[in-house]
Amino acid sequence: MRRRKKPGSKEKLLSYEDYLCKEPEKYKGRWKDYFHEEKLIHVELGTGRGQFITTLAEMNPHICYIGIEIKEEVLLRAVEKAVDKGLKNICFLWCDINKIHDIFDKNELSRIYINFCDPWPKKRWVQRRLTHRNFLEKYKYILGENGDVHFKTDNEKLFEFSLNELSYENFRLNNITFDLHHSETNDGITTEYEDKFSALGMKIYRCEGVKRN
Amino acid sequence: MRRRKKPGSKEKLLSYEDYLCKEPEKYKGRWKDYFHEEKLIHVELGTGRGQFITTLAEMNPHICYIGIEIKEEVLLRAVEKAVDKGLKNICFLWCDINKIHDIFDKNELSRIYINFCDPWPKKRWVQRRLTHRNFLEKYKYILGENGDVHFKTDNEKLFEFSLNELSYENFRLNNITFDLHHSETNDGITTEYEDKFSALGMKIYRCEGVKRN
Ligand SMILES: C[S@@+](CC[C@H](N)C(=O)[O-])C[C@H]1O[C@@H](n2cnc3c(N)ncnc32)[C@H](O)[C@@H]1O
Ligand SMILES: C[S@@+](CC[C@H](N)C(=O)[O-])C[C@H]1O[C@@H](n2cnc3c(N)ncnc32)[C@H](O)[C@@H]1O
Repeated sequence: MRRRKKPGSKEKLLSYEDYLCKEPEKYKGRWKDYFHEEKLIHVELGTGRGQFITTLAEMNPHICYIGIEIKEEVLLRAVEKAVDKGLKNICFLWCDINKIHDIFDKNELSRIYINFCDPWPKKRWVQRRLTHRNFLEKYKYILGENGDVHFKTDNEKLFEFSLNELSYENFRLNNITFDLHHSETNDGITTEYEDKFSALGMKIYRCEGVKRN
Repeated sequence: MRRRKKPGSKEKLLSYEDYLCKEPEKYKGRWKDYFHEEKLIHVELGTGRGQFITTLAEMNPHICYIGIEIKEEVLLRAVEKAVDKGLKNICFLWCDINKIHDIFDKNELSRIYINFCDPWPKKRWVQRRLTHRNFLEKYKYILGENGDVHFKTDNEKLFEFSLNELSYENFRLNNITFDLHHSETNDGITTEYEDKFSALGMKIYRCEGVKRN
């Protein structure tokens, strides 16, 4: 059953002008101008309700964060978290990840977070997975020197696939863990999906892929 | 309880002069002379009862195989398999893997197989794992250009550890699978331990690491 959309989410979302960047293509190549800051930029793809990225933004004022999400209802929840925390170093894009090439220029980012993205289990959907080589090619282009991808998932098959794709695309793999919540590499900064899955006793997989030059 | 050694294994093993190379250090840098062949050399570390390496040797007459094993009783079983098959492209070394530096010269090998090696689970034993970076450094030295390590295990923690170590040592990871026997990359060539574990319904992990130049 399809969930009904809450009425008014869209209008409410659009009203948060300080947090929602409505024409992101305009900032391609000049995101530092958008933030009025010479800071590193970290992006989260499929931000969802924003717990992860707003926690990071609060902890790391020296970094600028951009969350990308296509569903207005969940994005609204993310924006509201940023508003509540009074964050100055974050903005959100209500758009499709497939458009990142129009939004970021070569070497513009220093990190991309992908957390619990849709696994698209069937073979004919493989290209939709956010860690498919076609996406990784795009990430490599927009990531700067030593830029990296940080990836978490509950899905073992997707994790296996992602390790192979990252390696194929020549990323250096780091901190691979098959059970993050029982691992030394756990920093405790979780997403909404992560909390849900780990409460069910499911294992969380994580790795980092560093772009080679 | 310690298993008693079968009497006479040692003598029997030593009698197979065509298959057991007794002074391997003498062939360092000239293994092609040992085989009287200009063929690629593939080595298996901890060969056990030899099902895997003798199957490969039978299938691939254009490659020379060397199996290394420290326990004479199991090595005897491996040698007997080679004798039964009448193989000409294989020999065995009854020695400790820690000595490979004395046995092979720089770039002398093109592949190293490590199958179901002891997991050494405790932290203080980490350096004994055959995929520890100290071992990988040695493998890199004796492997030639694009030489690779093929690794299988039933132990998830050891597999996670090994992926990180291989990546750390700059190997390119290929064909990572978390469930070999339900994977497209399965070639069906199994070891004795593999047969035992998979009969118990355990998953088999596998990956390849290619040396970068
Ligand atoms: C499974 S949820 C995970 C949300 C969050 N990262 C977490 O871990 O709690 C995936 C999110 O990605 C978003 N998403 C999927 N495909 C997208 C696309 N092409 N562009 C933007 N967002 C997308 C979905 O709307 C959804 O909110
Ligand atoms: C768990 S068994 C696996 C045997 C075989 N590869 C298989 O998959 O059926 C590990 C083998 O490695 C051998 N081994 C362990 N450490 C070794 C060392 N330092 N040098 C030579 N052989 C060793 C053991 O004697 C044992 O036969």
